[in-house]
Amino acid sequence: MHELIERKTIFEGHVVGLYLDQVLLPNGKPVEREVVLHGGAVGMVPLDTEGCLTMVRQYRHATGEYLLEIPAGKLDEGESPESCAARELIEEVGLAPGRLIKLSEFYTSPGFSNEVLHLYLALDLEPREAAPEEDEFLEVERMPLEEALEAVGRLEIRDSKTVAGIALASLWRATRDGRKEVR
Amino acid sequence: MHELIERKTIFEGHVVGLYLDQVLLPNGKPVEREVVLHGGAVGMVPLDTEGCLTMVRQYRHATGEYLLEIPAGKLDEGESPESCAARELIEEVGLAPGRLIKLSEFYTSPGFSNEVLHLYLALDLEPREAAPEEDEFLEVERMPLEEALEAVGRLEIRDSKTVAGIALASLWRATRDGRKEVR
Repeated sequence: MHELIERKTIFEGHVVGLYLDQVLLPNGKPVEREVVLHGGAVGMVPLDTEGCLTMVRQYRHATGEYLLEIPAGKLDEGESPESCAARELIEEVGLAPGRLIKLSEFYTSPGFSNEVLHLYLALDLEPREAAPEEDEFLEVERMPLEEALEAVGRLEIRDSKTVAGIALASLWRATRDGRKEVR
Repeated sequence: MHELIERKTIFEGHVVGLYLDQVLLPNGKPVEREVVLHGGAVGMVPLDTEGCLTMVRQYRHATGEYLLEIPAGKLDEGESPESCAARELIEEVGLAPGRLIKLSEFYTSPGFSNEVLHLYLALDLEPREAAPEEDEFLEVERMPLEEALEAVGRLEIRDSKTVAGIALASLWRATRDGRKEVR
């Protein structure tokens, strides 16, 4: 454990806050740590009865690229991850999940950030009217889970929550089905 | 695509830089985007002939938690991901990889950051003398891949690259072995 000596606020924005911490290492040495605080987010792997995933393609300004990702969203303050997952899945792709199975929960980049991502498998999907936010420009894409896993292997799907979600959903399905082939 | 109008530098540190960008959305609306730039990193899943992974447990100041993670490291400027992977695997856990198989390459948090993580399966491991950096306090832990996957399911392994790496390595092995059980 590192003892926090002093925190200096560099920036507090709508999405992230940046802080410069003075901490004491276990060997008593003082060091500086750059810390990015974030309110957390959810990602959903919507898997339908035909074995297809529904994903979204969007431009990500920070990366300079269009990325194919599972539906996701930032947690509102005080909102539970499950409520957020159901809300965002309807808003982004017009699917209401009858069942949410937690696949994982992870820090996206623990070396400098506290952002936590709650990852769900979304099943028993019911169509609803999508309601993307005004400034979201999303293209919805549906593809078989096997194809998505192949796209991960070809490095065409390049988002942490989407890679983890596709891999864990593939393992979940292989285990459940007891099938010999998993990809 | 969003057109960049102006970038304001908020902070440039050793690990991250923070910028406030004015961008034009496709609908012509100007918006502000918080951007965290990072030089990229590598993560390695070292899988030995006994089917065990070698991981490291360390305190992550930004998260306030001790996390169990696969060995990883930041890319030095101009360094190839493969060289970095081999170097960091020796430094952190004393294993030299005879073979590196690229499992994935992803943005850890594309909503606000350009950090890319290059993920490898490391095989044909040869023991070497570890040389952790002075300020790294790592505890090395070795466990069967199946146990690691179970720890992901119990939400005990909570790091994006580690979750993705364990899941993809499990799929890789299940496919290669043609085994019925994958977890």
